[in-house]
Amino acid sequence: MKKQVYSFGNGTADGDGKMKDTLGGKGAGLAEMCRAKLPVPPGFTISTDVCNVYFQNNYAVPAGIHNEMIGALKTLEERMGQKLGDVNDPLLVSVRSGAKFSMPGMMDTILNLGLNDQTVKTLATRSNNPRFAYDCYRRFIQMYGNVVLEIGKHDFDAIFEGQKKKAKAKLDTELTAADLEQVIAGYQSLVQKKTGKAFPQDAMEQLQGARDAVFRSWFTDRAIHYRKMNQISDSLGTAVNVQAMVFGNLGETSATGVGFTRNPATGEKAFYGEFLENAQGEDVVSGVRTPHPISELKTWNEAVYNQLREITTMLEKHYRDIQDFEFTIQDGKLYMLQTRNGKRTGPAAVRIAVEMVGEGLIDKREAVLRVDPQQLDQLLHPVLDPKSKKTLTLLAKGLPASPGAAVGTIVFTANDAVEKFKSAPVILVRKETVPDDIHGMEVAKGILTARGGMTSHAAVVCRGMGTPCVAGAETVTVDEHKKEVSVSINGKTVTLKEGDWLSLDGSTGEAFAGQANTLDADPASGVLASFMGWADEFRGSFGVRANADIPRDAIAARKFGAEGIGLCRTEHMFFAEGRIEHMQAMILARDEKSRRKALQRLLPMQRKDFAGLFQAMDGFPVVIRTLDPPLHEFLPKREDLMVDIAVLPYADLKKKKAFAATYQKFGAEVKNLKTVLSALLKRVEELHEFNPMLGHRGCRLGITYPEITEMQARAIFEAVVLVARKGVKVIPEVMIPLIGGVKEFVNQKEIVVRVAEEVLAAAGMKDQHYLVGTMIEIPRAALTADSVATEAQFFSFGTNDLTQTTMGLSRDDYTKFQQDYQDRKIFANDPFAVLDQEGVGKLVKMAVDLGRKTNPKLEIGICGEHGGEPNSVQFCYRVGMNYVSCSPYRVPIARLAAAQAAISGDKSETMRTA
Amino acid sequence: MKKQVYSFGNGTADGDGKMKDTLGGKGAGLAEMCRAKLPVPPGFTISTDVCNVYFQNNYAVPAGIHNEMIGALKTLEERMGQKLGDVNDPLLVSVRSGAKFSMPGMMDTILNLGLNDQTVKTLATRSNNPRFAYDCYRRFIQMYGNVVLEIGKHDFDAIFEGQKKKAKAKLDTELTAADLEQVIAGYQSLVQKKTGKAFPQDAMEQLQGARDAVFRSWFTDRAIHYRKMNQISDSLGTAVNVQAMVFGNLGETSATGVGFTRNPATGEKAFYGEFLENAQGEDVVSGVRTPHPISELKTWNEAVYNQLREITTMLEKHYRDIQDFEFTIQDGKLYMLQTRNGKRTGPAAVRIAVEMVGEGLIDKREAVLRVDPQQLDQLLHPVLDPKSKKTLTLLAKGLPASPGAAVGTIVFTANDAVEKFKSAPVILVRKETVPDDIHGMEVAKGILTARGGMTSHAAVVCRGMGTPCVAGAETVTVDEHKKEVSVSINGKTVTLKEGDWLSLDGSTGEAFAGQANTLDADPASGVLASFMGWADEFRGSFGVRANADIPRDAIAARKFGAEGIGLCRTEHMFFAEGRIEHMQAMILARDEKSRRKALQRLLPMQRKDFAGLFQAMDGFPVVIRTLDPPLHEFLPKREDLMVDIAVLPYADLKKKKAFAATYQKFGAEVKNLKTVLSALLKRVEELHEFNPMLGHRGCRLGITYPEITEMQARAIFEAVVLVARKGVKVIPEVMIPLIGGVKEFVNQKEIVVRVAEEVLAAAGMKDQHYLVGTMIEIPRAALTADSVATEAQFFSFGTNDLTQTTMGLSRDDYTKFQQDYQDRKIFANDPFAVLDQEGVGKLVKMAVDLGRKTNPKLEIGICGEHGGEPNSVQFCYRVGMNYVSCSPYRVPIARLAAAQAAISGDKSETMRTA
Repeated sequence: MKKQVYSFGNGTADGDGKMKDTLGGKGAGLAEMCRAKLPVPPGFTISTDVCNVYFQNNYAVPAGIHNEMIGALKTLEERMGQKLGDVNDPLLVSVRSGAKFSMPGMMDTILNLGLNDQTVKTLATRSNNPRFAYDCYRRFIQMYGNVVLEIGKHDFDAIFEGQKKKAKAKLDTELTAADLEQVIAGYQSLVQKKTGKAFPQDAMEQLQGARDAVFRSWFTDRAIHYRKMNQISDSLGTAVNVQAMVFGNLGETSATGVGFTRNPATGEKAFYGEFLENAQGEDVVSGVRTPHPISELKTWNEAVYNQLREITTMLEKHYRDIQDFEFTIQDGKLYMLQTRNGKRTGPAAVRIAVEMVGEGLIDKREAVLRVDPQQLDQLLHPVLDPKSKKTLTLLAKGLPASPGAAVGTIVFTANDAVEKFKSAPVILVRKETVPDDIHGMEVAKGILTARGGMTSHAAVVCRGMGTPCVAGAETVTVDEHKKEVSVSINGKTVTLKEGDWLSLDGSTGEAFAGQANTLDADPASGVLASFMGWADEFRGSFGVRANADIPRDAIAARKFGAEGIGLCRTEHMFFAEGRIEHMQAMILARDEKSRRKALQRLLPMQRKDFAGLFQAMDGFPVVIRTLDPPLHEFLPKREDLMVDIAVLPYADLKKKKAFAATYQKFGAEVKNLKTVLSALLKRVEELHEFNPMLGHRGCRLGITYPEITEMQARAIFEAVVLVARKGVKVIPEVMIPLIGGVKEFVNQKEIVVRVAEEVLAAAGMKDQHYLVGTMIEIPRAALTADSVATEAQFFSFGTNDLTQTTMGLSRDDYTKFQQDYQDRKIFANDPFAVLDQEGVGKLVKMAVDLGRKTNPKLEIGICGEHGGEPNSVQFCYRVGMNYVSCSPYRVPIARLAAAQAAISGDKSETMRTA
Repeated sequence: MKKQVYSFGNGTADGDGKMKDTLGGKGAGLAEMCRAKLPVPPGFTISTDVCNVYFQNNYAVPAGIHNEMIGALKTLEERMGQKLGDVNDPLLVSVRSGAKFSMPGMMDTILNLGLNDQTVKTLATRSNNPRFAYDCYRRFIQMYGNVVLEIGKHDFDAIFEGQKKKAKAKLDTELTAADLEQVIAGYQSLVQKKTGKAFPQDAMEQLQGARDAVFRSWFTDRAIHYRKMNQISDSLGTAVNVQAMVFGNLGETSATGVGFTRNPATGEKAFYGEFLENAQGEDVVSGVRTPHPISELKTWNEAVYNQLREITTMLEKHYRDIQDFEFTIQDGKLYMLQTRNGKRTGPAAVRIAVEMVGEGLIDKREAVLRVDPQQLDQLLHPVLDPKSKKTLTLLAKGLPASPGAAVGTIVFTANDAVEKFKSAPVILVRKETVPDDIHGMEVAKGILTARGGMTSHAAVVCRGMGTPCVAGAETVTVDEHKKEVSVSINGKTVTLKEGDWLSLDGSTGEAFAGQANTLDADPASGVLASFMGWADEFRGSFGVRANADIPRDAIAARKFGAEGIGLCRTEHMFFAEGRIEHMQAMILARDEKSRRKALQRLLPMQRKDFAGLFQAMDGFPVVIRTLDPPLHEFLPKREDLMVDIAVLPYADLKKKKAFAATYQKFGAEVKNLKTVLSALLKRVEELHEFNPMLGHRGCRLGITYPEITEMQARAIFEAVVLVARKGVKVIPEVMIPLIGGVKEFVNQKEIVVRVAEEVLAAAGMKDQHYLVGTMIEIPRAALTADSVATEAQFFSFGTNDLTQTTMGLSRDDYTKFQQDYQDRKIFANDPFAVLDQEGVGKLVKMAVDLGRKTNPKLEIGICGEHGGEPNSVQFCYRVGMNYVSCSPYRVPIARLAAAQAAISGDKSETMRTA
């Protein structure tokens, strides 16, 4: 049988740091530290496999594995010279979760296990600190009661607060040992009442219960939600770490702390962290007490401080990455409880990667692989406008826990955040956040907490999500009940309520009352520019273009490094005021002549727009797609018209005037409303479609109304002439949407080529280079890509529509059952966010291969939303596309994802360069 | 260079009967008859290739080919001892079209070419019949003027009728030679006026003009339309046959005729045809004069009659098929002008095939290949109910030109037919039909003509289309202007007008005033039963099932030979009165409990329906699909509700009562209308979808509401138990619709299997066999068919939806641009009628191969509309499916198509039987 329980301690370990799959991150780190002879309390790790076995085995650990655990426990007891449950010298252990990927605070932990009514007395005697012993015991009952026995926290809190009241204590620490014995008695009768059984006194039973509860915590709602958010598979499971207790709360010479070898928010190379004297680890992380900066540890105990710096520096060198560590000092002796590669913000990730290259710790290749492309988003997000800051009231200054600007309206609970974020951006303001707040934190633009440090729950989670966070703003008072936050500024109390605007600067820790302006980030700034330069080196010839419809977007795209426009949607130009009228006139025209007349009015506008794009993209290609949406999108809605017509006979003059105003563009006046509305409805009915997604749109419009394609082609090539004459290099690529096969393409291509040749010849520019290609967004086009490629000069995958058709899934409608599908794990990801490689991707690959077979020079790209999603970008690289195209802000993300794909190796490389 | 002009005559020919591709049907037949030493006037055939060259070469025949023609002309002149345009002994020729597939009357013909102002005199002298000569010349000018010079027929008619008036002639034949010279003078000045040039006197110029005009006639609207209707490719082109003239109109010893070796309407083995003395061929075919039955030829000239019988019998044996021939008798001498395999009706095709096997002319294999599966439709169509006939007035008895019953309302023009057929079935009533009527004939249920024989245009075209036709009902008077048809019955005039009902029996030639009842055909009748028996022998194990939702259809399906039900759409059961209320209650339910309550009421109804199907299909499988359509289909329409709510504030009591009645089922009363309608609209809005085709339907419903699938599974298996206990063998196959991958399938399969095991175990029927499989109707399901097949026990291709998704084409909406697509030849066929093998078919094949790879025992079928379309059935056979399923009436068609596919050979045979 496969080994399932791994011991560590006394400078040796069964596992090692590479075994994260089996031991989880924490277990692997403990094993590795033991092997490095670091001071680690001994223990053992139950593998992640057991977690899955536990669920498959009907919520039970099979006897074989249980016995293996007992063997490991025996080793631990020998190493400690103590026995679990031994009245004379009881071994106390912690039981912690530890998955492959860190999920801070999402799963359960139990400390001080092994205490019972007897052993607590021994601990009191041996520690010579009865208050400490009874505090440990009451904490243990509380944790165990909550996690294993599933009794609500508030039930325990009520008993504890009751005792405080009785003892007239303000702080927890004012309770005496005797008080705590009262609390314990209360807890025990609560357990008896809720479970019908006494609190378990048998230490082995305690251990088994705690182990199983940790497994079960893998499937708490918040853990599931966190994994979904972070795309962590449910099938990984968590390991369970059982480790001898060391106590940071044994008195004034004890302490506990957490830290990072560098600043995880900014990336600055500075020893970073916090500690609390006379406390257990939970006290630091939970944010209940605000801890001291780690620099003060030097004053508190210089030897320990130096030892800690030495150990963590060694660990960083060993792992060649920023370390996130936990330690406990028991009676002046340092113990390492955890080390792992630290989570960091996007800016920190980039800075650390670049600086580690400078330090010779890693090379450029590794540096490029070190940054999650999604994280770059944080560097590209806006910052607060310094001018704007000056006009607002500085409400408070807290810790710069997660960088970036956040502007929104205040909410005080996670549920409120979820309820309100759709109508306005929200900032979640909390005393401190708890793991159950995760759903609200996910939707908030930023988070402000009154308590907690740089490693508090809010700080850690926000950095993970890239959400700006100001933590531990201690001057503010949060009243979650009244839904108010107040602060005294120069003796005056300023109070903000739910819905009031708040602006956070997560990079400085400032919180401003009011709505600040923001400024775009500068992607060409120092460290990012170097980093992206390396990424581009590895990316090589694989291009990244941007989707941009107007010159302003095109200019932004260039700033973010776009090497061309991969998609210009011409219809966006038609919806604008001053244009839609002509579009409507075109649609309502009953013959080609009147249609041409209306189109003639649109021509100069389109030409001007295209000229702006060509100007911005000097020397880079610009892909322009001909008209795509169904014509009814430009007219009033059918049901609105039906209602208006139904109501018309009852309308008074005022209402009629209102109708006349609404339908003015269509020639409506008070006296002719019925005629005009009926005629309009008639045309709208003619255009009405049951499934517009599969209807008369895309190239089908250009085939029915060739004059539309003709006008667009004319606008494009007249713009080419205009701009090229200014000495700008113009590379136009005309793209036909929604073809199902080569015949539709040829029909439209002929029009484009005819007009192009005509316009260019007239301008004496016969040598002007241009391409005519097609979207591949209908499965049939992909299936017949070999014949399409004989005529098309480029393909661009429209994976939005291709996903809709390949999966038979309307993007506008599937939200109705999206949740059901996610709950039942039918979709691993939202297929409109992350390309479905198994299904849609198979079709994409097929089309690439078929297309290149008949046209080896075929230029191939993607312009669906997936073009900016890292996994999908890597897929595009792997199948041999020439470029991806995405929204301007996602261009750097795509550049990095492509670089990582290139580094990871690619079988299709030869095809692409063919 | 490839030979392009083929001479024939004097017992020899360059080509032969097999060269239909090159010579067309007529040219190949002439060559073959020459080789058989039959009396054929010599001539030459210009190949079909030249037709394409002509169009590619900008409407001109290249010099090389023209010279080749001059060479062939020289041979012809030598064979005839005459010269084209020679004043002393002019050669006269006919110039006729002749494509690979017969297109009766669709293209142009020119006779008497070679006549001019000089040669007509020679002809007058030599024939000693000036009237004949000038009649030939005026006919030639008229044909040439119309066909080559494109002058309207009515212009010529006006001159001709003017002369008749002037000469006080009633019949054409009353005009003298001198009269005809006047007509010719009139014609010539018409030509001068219209073309600005004199009528060409140069015979070579005439020949060239006629040749090119015949090529151009390949692309007349009617020819294009005919080809589209008959799925004949535009790229085939027509040949041109130039042949020495023989004259059936040389006097009373001359005649012309057409005939068949068997009856093309019934298949009866009887010499069949018609002739007209002193006439040219056009006179017979055009239906202007009603000809004599061919039996009367025996009286007229027995020797010629015997020679003709001998020749045609020989031709039938030679071609081993019914022959359609044309002949001319010039001065008592017989000439054969054409022979080809005869077009025939469905009943005739079956009878001829079966009888020829009896005669030893062909074997069973050939017999099965001889019948176009689509033609079987005619044998399966209803016939007039004899009882009903007795109650109606027999209006007229004409010729039984094309069999079958037709009941409809009268129209008098092709355009009226096209305009009206959508609102009611129409019968087209005409004096005689002309090729330009084709679009109206296509949509008519039946055709009645007052003139014309069994080989008239109406008769020939109707037999080709399988449309019932009564031709030459000479007692009726058709006034197309007044839109009336009248007939005198026993001295009383009966007049029917446009829109009146008319019933035709094309098998007896009877026409009844009024709307007759019809009876279903009997597919088990003698000759058809034998024929289908042979087809089934060749078809082997490839199954044909029927789509049937209710027991009545299932019983019909068995009668037509269905070997099971391939698709039972359970939702059709829900739309019925007494059921839809429960369905609506289920949809409006806000929780699972209320949903289950409503479902519980539907359960016994579904169970009863299923039991009926199982009963009817004793021993054959029944595939039942779980609920498929989106739920909003069961509720009132959103826009109707919006209008009603908008109008409500203005409604008086009467209107409110009407509203209350409309919405009664939803609890509406006059006093609560606003509340009820608003609540209903709220739910309808929740369910509203932008693209319902791609929305919340199919298995997605069963995943969101597992209780629906559960109820349906329970109804199915309870019905299985009920029926099996009666000793009936039940083979249920439960089918999950609209899956995109294996996970959705497994979700639903688990429910079905759980319920099935439960119900069967409770009934002590654990051994009852059943399958759970899936529709493949979403491209993703096809692309991932390998993984789907690991769980599914069968696939059934839903090619309706698969076509919609693969082509991105909504069946309900694409009619908006269907015509544009057909005109531009983007779709060869309607992809919802004939499976798109290149695109959709590629996906189907891929899914079959992938599915069998992981599950070699996978049962695979098709249940889309394509399952009854012969080309698609053959495709299904070829890719290795196990069966097709189609509507009951199309089952025999599918059986025959499958047999033909089996005979034609199939590479996937091994896969299917694996």
